Amino acid sequence: MSWSSYQKNYFRWNKLGLALDLNGLSLKADAFESMRPAMDEAFAAMDALEGGAIANPDEKRMVGHYWLRDAERAPSDDIRRAISETYEKVAVFARKVHSGEIRGTGGTFTDLLVIGIGGSALGPQFVAQALGRPGEDRLRVHFFDNTDPDGMDLTLAHLRGRFPTTLVLVISKSGGTPETRNGMLEAAHAFLGEGVEFPRQAVAVTGEGSQLDKIAESEDWLARFPMFDWVGGRTSETAAVGLLPAALQGLDINGLLRGAAAMDAQTRLHTIEENPSALLALAWYFATNGKGEKDMVILPYKDRLQLLSRYLQQLIMESLGKESDLQGNPVYQGIAVYGNKGSTDQHAYVQQLREGVPNFFATFISVLKDREGASLEVEPGVTSGDYLHAFLLGTRAALLEKDRASLTITIEEVTPAAVGGLIALYERAVGFYASLVNINAYHQPGVEAGKKAAALFLKQQSQLLQQIHSNAGNGQTVEEIAAALDMAGEEAALHSILIHLAANPAKGIHCAPGPSPAADRFSAT
Amino acid sequence: MSWSSYQKNYFRWNKLGLALDLNGLSLKADAFESMRPAMDEAFAAMDALEGGAIANPDEKRMVGHYWLRDAERAPSDDIRRAISETYEKVAVFARKVHSGEIRGTGGTFTDLLVIGIGGSALGPQFVAQALGRPGEDRLRVHFFDNTDPDGMDLTLAHLRGRFPTTLVLVISKSGGTPETRNGMLEAAHAFLGEGVEFPRQAVAVTGEGSQLDKIAESEDWLARFPMFDWVGGRTSETAAVGLLPAALQGLDINGLLRGAAAMDAQTRLHTIEENPSALLALAWYFATNGKGEKDMVILPYKDRLQLLSRYLQQLIMESLGKESDLQGNPVYQGIAVYGNKGSTDQHAYVQQLREGVPNFFATFISVLKDREGASLEVEPGVTSGDYLHAFLLGTRAALLEKDRASLTITIEEVTPAAVGGLIALYERAVGFYASLVNINAYHQPGVEAGKKAAALFLKQQSQLLQQIHSNAGNGQTVEEIAAALDMAGEEAALHSILIHLAANPAKGIHCAPGPSPAADRFSAT
Repeated sequence: MSWSSYQKNYFRWNKLGLALDLNGLSLKADAFESMRPAMDEAFAAMDALEGGAIANPDEKRMVGHYWLRDAERAPSDDIRRAISETYEKVAVFARKVHSGEIRGTGGTFTDLLVIGIGGSALGPQFVAQALGRPGEDRLRVHFFDNTDPDGMDLTLAHLRGRFPTTLVLVISKSGGTPETRNGMLEAAHAFLGEGVEFPRQAVAVTGEGSQLDKIAESEDWLARFPMFDWVGGRTSETAAVGLLPAALQGLDINGLLRGAAAMDAQTRLHTIEENPSALLALAWYFATNGKGEKDMVILPYKDRLQLLSRYLQQLIMESLGKESDLQGNPVYQGIAVYGNKGSTDQHAYVQQLREGVPNFFATFISVLKDREGASLEVEPGVTSGDYLHAFLLGTRAALLEKDRASLTITIEEVTPAAVGGLIALYERAVGFYASLVNINAYHQPGVEAGKKAAALFLKQQSQLLQQIHSNAGNGQTVEEIAAALDMAGEEAALHSILIHLAANPAKGIHCAPGPSPAADRFSAT
Repeated sequence: MSWSSYQKNYFRWNKLGLALDLNGLSLKADAFESMRPAMDEAFAAMDALEGGAIANPDEKRMVGHYWLRDAERAPSDDIRRAISETYEKVAVFARKVHSGEIRGTGGTFTDLLVIGIGGSALGPQFVAQALGRPGEDRLRVHFFDNTDPDGMDLTLAHLRGRFPTTLVLVISKSGGTPETRNGMLEAAHAFLGEGVEFPRQAVAVTGEGSQLDKIAESEDWLARFPMFDWVGGRTSETAAVGLLPAALQGLDINGLLRGAAAMDAQTRLHTIEENPSALLALAWYFATNGKGEKDMVILPYKDRLQLLSRYLQQLIMESLGKESDLQGNPVYQGIAVYGNKGSTDQHAYVQQLREGVPNFFATFISVLKDREGASLEVEPGVTSGDYLHAFLLGTRAALLEKDRASLTITIEEVTPAAVGGLIALYERAVGFYASLVNINAYHQPGVEAGKKAAALFLKQQSQLLQQIHSNAGNGQTVEEIAAALDMAGEEAALHSILIHLAANPAKGIHCAPGPSPAADRFSAT
């Protein structure tokens, strides 16, 4: 391809330190032209959203994460004030923690335990890894991001001996997320076991008046920070959810916000070729035929960005993975996202990407600066970083040779501004893409069913425990138990619950295994 | 579904502590029957492989990872001896490191740095996390698994101050993998910077007579362990590649091998219903229509198993992602694999799984035992672990309700034997599946192209550096440079290389950015 043709699909914004190379997508010459009317509608919908319209119609909510980076654009004084007051409160709180004015029962805080899941963990985890400097960060950051007891024990093992100087953030909008609630209780229990009063070291980030807010207030926790109903979990990295842990770690949250604001300003423009988020959304549209026909493989060639793909899994899949369009017609939308980092992933699955089932398009992310300070030459004139860059170019060429599509995002360096910029770039691309395929990007109606079913299984567990303990000594089969509980037809679920109970001695359930599940006999121990 | 129907697709092996529930796949009644002839061929191919046939025809190699768990089955005395001697050598070396008989320049080793990529990192990383006990492990384990200079600096920052007690394993079969070679050089350089002679603390795991083997010999490293040409990288966890770091960490490698051997014994049987790997391969076949039409989403509900999906990405995608079948016909096979852990991922992308594009099947992995020791009740009679288990059941039910397929693997506990068993289960399932779709699972012909292209880009980089430095002071455009180097048509690649060079000051290249890439001017600094 000629250099001048190449540049037609190579877009660069010097001020943002960003380039977007769409040459790997083999776009038709009139690709953007053909989408201009649809993109104009997307621009208009985004303008309305930023103006304070109810952009999430099902939940009747405004969608305001862009205001967080430029409070002046918020649609009311109340919101403007809430944003600036929260930012100020975050900055002041972090300063006091760093100075030791706010301290743990054992002295100045050394560690931070963030308890959250989904949007309350993925952004903080991504940013903590992307911008952290081990040994130099103000606090070491740890996470509870699940309700796995053993997983919590693993995290606590890393903190052992430092509970009295570990600050804990509990992040949950409703305060009712069971994983987070359980994590909070487990942490409090562990702290108390070493004589540390949890409330003296705990901070809540939650919706005003939530269950968690009330607990934090009544127990007089160190501080409470708000979560707003106009900020969704997966777009809350520039709200207190993301800013507070970042500030406590010692990261430059002002830089993060400035980078996001600069990207917002650029992606607000109505000219496709000037707007990186519009270009990205269109790239997805062409790559997946507007129907999620291809998976998005995210390959940042930079270890620090390894969690980007997990962050984007939520941002993209939860936003775009929808059964119905805005009129309620079934559409089964979405784009599957996966990936870790290059060149590492080349040694895992580039074999399939180049030769196997052609069901993906790749996103290469190039970071131009190799490291702080000088580099060793691993060969005359060649550094490790030269190899990293050459592998990106080489793998991209090898995929293109086999007609596997890709796009490339280039940033200069993993700075707070660049990370803020990437987040804003993808946030708005998701919004545009949702407009192109006519769906609501801001709700998640499909996540409740699993939670409700789980609640039912917990109820069944309670019934099972009661039934078996009241029949002490009598080994019963699942069929017998189901009959006794008037739950015939539920044997499979009951059996699953029972073998889990039997594997955990404190439950007091014994399983005498038979040759088949139907022959297993359960009794009280 | 009735309990008796349910059990027809629920398989359990009490001795292995394993169950496989295929009810979420909605299999036809004659599903297995219809595949019996094909599976018989797969069994025969596997028997031949285990007997020492050239099961990797393109590379004319035997495929012997199953022998590693039962050396008696190896086809020659030489191989039997190599296996048992290597195991013994690993065990003795680890013992001497733990006792301090083999020690660093600063005393008894405290840390282990593993330098490897692909099969030389993914297995060790998975096992280290699955079985590690922070605070109790004999050595803390760290990895270089890329050629990212900043990534290496991050790992080194965690080791800072402990270089004199850090043992380094360099793992590379050929010794020529650039990422690993670079990592070795960077580590040696960093160690030397703190006065630590690298060879005094280094161990090589490599093919006999390889480049790395020669370096280790000539520099008199602490030890050298072999890699065999009949063990592929992605199936080398039960070779020295996996056993040595595990033993050094203090993990029970004997248990790991026993678990793998027990699974091997079970998966060697020729009756589909008795053979977990055959069932798994058939499950994949039915779920993907034998063509990789669905992605495999791996959801272990246990933090320790979070890296399983990355391990399986390589094992499955590199083995099955093939352009041609055994007769050379184009087939574009493969199955895309992704996932992290439950219930965490529920909060990231179950929205899309339940409602969005139906392009996947899920693998739920249930671990019955919650944790070591007693659990707090987070509600009366309910623990965090009960929630974890209920979320698995609830999400599975919610997916099934929307006709999203899944299968469930249940293990009792994450023990060395269970981890060895999981590895062996998947290794053989991959082999069977490859037979079903008539491909070579044991080569990776598609990975060379990217490496070759990368080498070319490094050569171009060298030419660019020379050209610009010999034109000191004259800012040139890419077009001018390409013309001078007689590389017209290569401007896009040259520009990529140049902006990377310019971002790293030691290269001595300055970029005066123009409004477009064509207008950028590059000169020597």
